[in-house]
Amino acid sequence: MDELRRHIEKIVSLTEDEFIAVKSFFTEKQFKKHRFLIQEGGNATNEFFILKGLVKLYYTNAEGKDHILQFAAEDWWVTDYNAFFNQAAATLNLDCLEDTTVLSISFDGRERLCAEFPKMQYFFLKKSNSGYVALQRRILSLLDGTAAERYAQFRLLYPGLVNRVPKTLLAAYLGVSRETLSRLA
Amino acid sequence: MDELRRHIEKIVSLTEDEFIAVKSFFTEKQFKKHRFLIQEGGNATNEFFILKGLVKLYYTNAEGKDHILQFAAEDWWVTDYNAFFNQAAATLNLDCLEDTTVLSISFDGRERLCAEFPKMQYFFLKKSNSGYVALQRRILSLLDGTAAERYAQFRLLYPGLVNRVPKTLLAAYLGVSRETLSRLA
Repeated sequence: MDELRRHIEKIVSLTEDEFIAVKSFFTEKQFKKHRFLIQEGGNATNEFFILKGLVKLYYTNAEGKDHILQFAAEDWWVTDYNAFFNQAAATLNLDCLEDTTVLSISFDGRERLCAEFPKMQYFFLKKSNSGYVALQRRILSLLDGTAAERYAQFRLLYPGLVNRVPKTLLAAYLGVSRETLSRLA
Repeated sequence: MDELRRHIEKIVSLTEDEFIAVKSFFTEKQFKKHRFLIQEGGNATNEFFILKGLVKLYYTNAEGKDHILQFAAEDWWVTDYNAFFNQAAATLNLDCLEDTTVLSISFDGRERLCAEFPKMQYFFLKKSNSGYVALQRRILSLLDGTAAERYAQFRLLYPGLVNRVPKTLLAAYLGVSRETLSRLA
């Protein structure tokens, strides 16, 4: 849980007692490579903080083609946020690219945590704001960037992921062909 | 200011005194069509709530081509969020497609508002969460949707905007050519 505390304290500081209370909202869970944390049509009642490992969040279209919305490794938060925030059935899939250990918090737990600790609400607001900006950046990259620019941006933003994510999946994330990525990588 | 109160109270309720305090953080401003609220390289120290009118948020690349990130009409919040949250120079432009009236709040004002009223912090958290989900949906639409699907989705999500946004700009937003949009619209 030390990782969670270090992560939260980049934004707000917590006393020892506060952190003990905060961490009581989380449950540690382990998933083997290839296992699903969320499956389309199932529930997405939990948000996950990655302690160790690597997961991918993706949408499978009607023709069976996957589109990758996000990779998430250590210190990242991930879930099907549309389903999570709206308490609706999942439309995305979340599975493990490596053996993965997460801290899991339920929607109700997160709501209570924010209500009891305004500084945790502040923490989640700052994380959401940063996430919003990162998605805007990705939209601009999809609208404007060449394949080479998208790959360069990914390397710059996520240097730790370039060698952990299989190239086929990285190509899908960038919206470029596997052959194009091979010429760049 | 009644619009702001109605808008906030979709998420949290405010007493009369609370709303008087909340609205003191905002300043009403008017901008003529074609005027800029934010210009690349300038500051983005304010976030805007649109009372009346229509604006577009866009990025101009090195070749002078514009990419539209967002339109915003009545009841929408808009700014260059990267610049706003990070107190950095703007990389986006925000200008008026119609005469526009906004309520403006500064970054410092918003931080104080959230600190003094945890329910306003909750309000901004919920808005940020919804915005995050909307951007994820747009990314999937850019990765997966055909031109026809993107246009149909835009009509479904923003029925009030279809006839207010010039078709050339709508084509740019959707990432399709003006000719393709003509065949669809």
